[in-house]
Amino acid sequence: MGVLTMTDSVKYLLPEDRIPRAWYNMAADLPKPLPAVLHPGTGQPIGPADLAAIFPMPLILQEVASERDIEIPQPVRDVYKLWRPAPLYRALRLERALDTPARIFYKYEGVSPAGSHKPNTAVAQAFYNRESGIAKLSTETGAGQWGSSLAFAGALFGLEVKVYMVKVSYQQKPYRRALMETYGATCIPSPSKETESGRAILAANPDSPGSLGIAISEAVEVAAKNADTNYALGSVLNHVLLHQTVIGLEAIEQMEMAGFWPDVVVACAGGGSNFAGIAFPFLGKKLRGGKDVRVVAVEPAACPTLTRGTYAYDFGDTAHLTPLVKMHTLGSQFVPPGFHAGGLRYHGMAPLVSHLKELGLIEARAVHQTPCFEAGVAFARAEGIVPAPESTHAVRAAVDEALAAKAEGRARTILFNLSGHGHFDMQAYTDYFAGKLEDRDYDEAALRDSLAALPKVAA
Amino acid sequence: MGVLTMTDSVKYLLPEDRIPRAWYNMAADLPKPLPAVLHPGTGQPIGPADLAAIFPMPLILQEVASERDIEIPQPVRDVYKLWRPAPLYRALRLERALDTPARIFYKYEGVSPAGSHKPNTAVAQAFYNRESGIAKLSTETGAGQWGSSLAFAGALFGLEVKVYMVKVSYQQKPYRRALMETYGATCIPSPSKETESGRAILAANPDSPGSLGIAISEAVEVAAKNADTNYALGSVLNHVLLHQTVIGLEAIEQMEMAGFWPDVVVACAGGGSNFAGIAFPFLGKKLRGGKDVRVVAVEPAACPTLTRGTYAYDFGDTAHLTPLVKMHTLGSQFVPPGFHAGGLRYHGMAPLVSHLKELGLIEARAVHQTPCFEAGVAFARAEGIVPAPESTHAVRAAVDEALAAKAEGRARTILFNLSGHGHFDMQAYTDYFAGKLEDRDYDEAALRDSLAALPKVAA
Repeated sequence: MGVLTMTDSVKYLLPEDRIPRAWYNMAADLPKPLPAVLHPGTGQPIGPADLAAIFPMPLILQEVASERDIEIPQPVRDVYKLWRPAPLYRALRLERALDTPARIFYKYEGVSPAGSHKPNTAVAQAFYNRESGIAKLSTETGAGQWGSSLAFAGALFGLEVKVYMVKVSYQQKPYRRALMETYGATCIPSPSKETESGRAILAANPDSPGSLGIAISEAVEVAAKNADTNYALGSVLNHVLLHQTVIGLEAIEQMEMAGFWPDVVVACAGGGSNFAGIAFPFLGKKLRGGKDVRVVAVEPAACPTLTRGTYAYDFGDTAHLTPLVKMHTLGSQFVPPGFHAGGLRYHGMAPLVSHLKELGLIEARAVHQTPCFEAGVAFARAEGIVPAPESTHAVRAAVDEALAAKAEGRARTILFNLSGHGHFDMQAYTDYFAGKLEDRDYDEAALRDSLAALPKVAA
Repeated sequence: MGVLTMTDSVKYLLPEDRIPRAWYNMAADLPKPLPAVLHPGTGQPIGPADLAAIFPMPLILQEVASERDIEIPQPVRDVYKLWRPAPLYRALRLERALDTPARIFYKYEGVSPAGSHKPNTAVAQAFYNRESGIAKLSTETGAGQWGSSLAFAGALFGLEVKVYMVKVSYQQKPYRRALMETYGATCIPSPSKETESGRAILAANPDSPGSLGIAISEAVEVAAKNADTNYALGSVLNHVLLHQTVIGLEAIEQMEMAGFWPDVVVACAGGGSNFAGIAFPFLGKKLRGGKDVRVVAVEPAACPTLTRGTYAYDFGDTAHLTPLVKMHTLGSQFVPPGFHAGGLRYHGMAPLVSHLKELGLIEARAVHQTPCFEAGVAFARAEGIVPAPESTHAVRAAVDEALAAKAEGRARTILFNLSGHGHFDMQAYTDYFAGKLEDRDYDEAALRDSLAALPKVAA
């Protein structure tokens, strides 16, 4: 009857007044500064004014900030109260199921109203845009996590939100669309006829299923052309990663409550925001002379940006409307094969995450989706929470760390970020149980072509 | 910029050690005892032994218990820790949107892994069955909230769970089925060929879409015929309502934290369990000489058990395998017209809730679905959480109470139970936005026929 007794605490909750008062800025602790962002026309470093057409000045200043702590405005903390501080759990039941000496902890971000970590930055971005007199936001979404999070934030701050949703997701995920519309946002399948970028794609391929790169082009174009409209991005940029650090800042306090410090911190990485959110505060402590900690980013084998991409200047979008950033990239024309973690399909990786990888401060590994869902199902049956397909990548790596500890016969403490629940993605689980998942690799030749087409930048 | 400042607290959290240590038994405070449960063959009151074929003895004893406080076993509290204590919120943003002097509070049960209040009893039932040496549980589900909750609880306690799911829901809600299967349960469309009850229905109508009453018959039959299998019910019975009282017990502490006492407590009512869960602890305090409080049960106009049903002895299922209980009923053959709140389609109402209605201790009102979704969307845009279609009935009534306060120009304090989130039911919102919802009334002639067929019981 082992499963029936478990008097140890499994959940570490912080009171509402422990919502962080400042975000943690990783840039303050970098041993080497981040490469400049370049203007796509001139190849010269851009300044704040170059971004002012699509972002409000407070976010532009955060993008280039160097101070360690950046105050969280009270209205943002007030909205965070709806679900933050998020719980941190010890996965005691999973440990028992794996029969491992490892201690497994997870931070759970699925408690937000949109079901993932994305509202941490959506709320901040909506606030600063509203403060700056902006009435409308445009954005893109793939799986729909980001679009529904910005729709939620827009509703609370009275902003109109227009979401360009990758067409294939728009068709496959009507529930995500319904969620955005319930929050009052408008959702448009991309490529659309509403933008030049979209019309150009449709002219070349009327049946284009869309891609995140195309949807970004459409959303950026709308923001650039309309004075009352700004653009909001759900990952990649420094300010987005900054806002996500509330995850790790809370987790540090919660690990102290639990009386353990992680030997390894694990998160999945698409654009890098949930990974940065949990990892940066721990990494910063280490760089300032604190305890050692390994940090592992887990990406899909079908879109292996950190493990197989090139570290180079590239565009963030398909139509090349964005500035050039130095990052791990598969090339802006790269199209990964089909897999279920729609939030991990981006061709690039956050510059900050890429930079840390180049400095040898983080590890990366790529995994196929079937073993991820296998771990996700084991997690659900032990811990009760069904992970989002993206989050199963973190679960897989955490389970592998726990199994390695078992093989070595040594305890270790593992912390991973359970970035969202899978309630909107149950079709993926259905396909997994039906044996319909394919573990496809990317096309090597297409990757070579995509990398060969990277923009030429005089470094 | 009014929406941007809100420094008041909006969330009332209890620490983990404030998970209740005992459930509250409403039977202890009834001014008049509950009518007996009758054997369908003899018409005589049944004893505990009559139920032993399908329920474990600890639950049977809870069904007839008269003591006020019934201890919650530690292993049940340990699982509750995964999401309890559940938060209680003040809906400040909704109050502002309605421009009402009323204070609106809501208890949010959607934080459970299955997304509703149902795990409160599923976990307890799984525990007692496991303790009693049972290996398998059978049950029915309509919308899927209950089936997925029992699947979750079964996974944690190592029980096999078989769920008979109303066929039309099985076809319309593949994600709910996927959730049950992810937890390791088996899900069977009902009516099925696996049971005599199912085969009889299919013989008469091969295209039967199923009903909750039919699915109950199938699940009860399987439990009755197999010694290693028990039956689990998600609502109606005394022990189920008992387990749900953790909702109200926590809410009492949280309202004390907030410094307000509700003038009115509101919940939707299908079988009555989430309603009882929040209302009984407040009602019990009032009956023991505490502060006055109005208690309102909200039901769908298409299935108006409390407002249009008869208070009479009736069967719980279609095939008449269950004992006879005295309750508000539309008759066990009643089939409501289509509407989206699948959890509110049952023909009867919990005997305890029905008894309190007869005693004049609670109010009931029936509402159509369109105004419910209208209130649900307003709630989502103000508070960020998308309510389950069932829960929108409570939101509607709470909003109406707040609007009445505004019309009267007098403050009042409203507490409602937000019993679950709507992430699995977004099709309903899509239909609402598309103008496809119909506010159908039940068929008066069919109701007359159904009531005329009630079993004849010598009172």
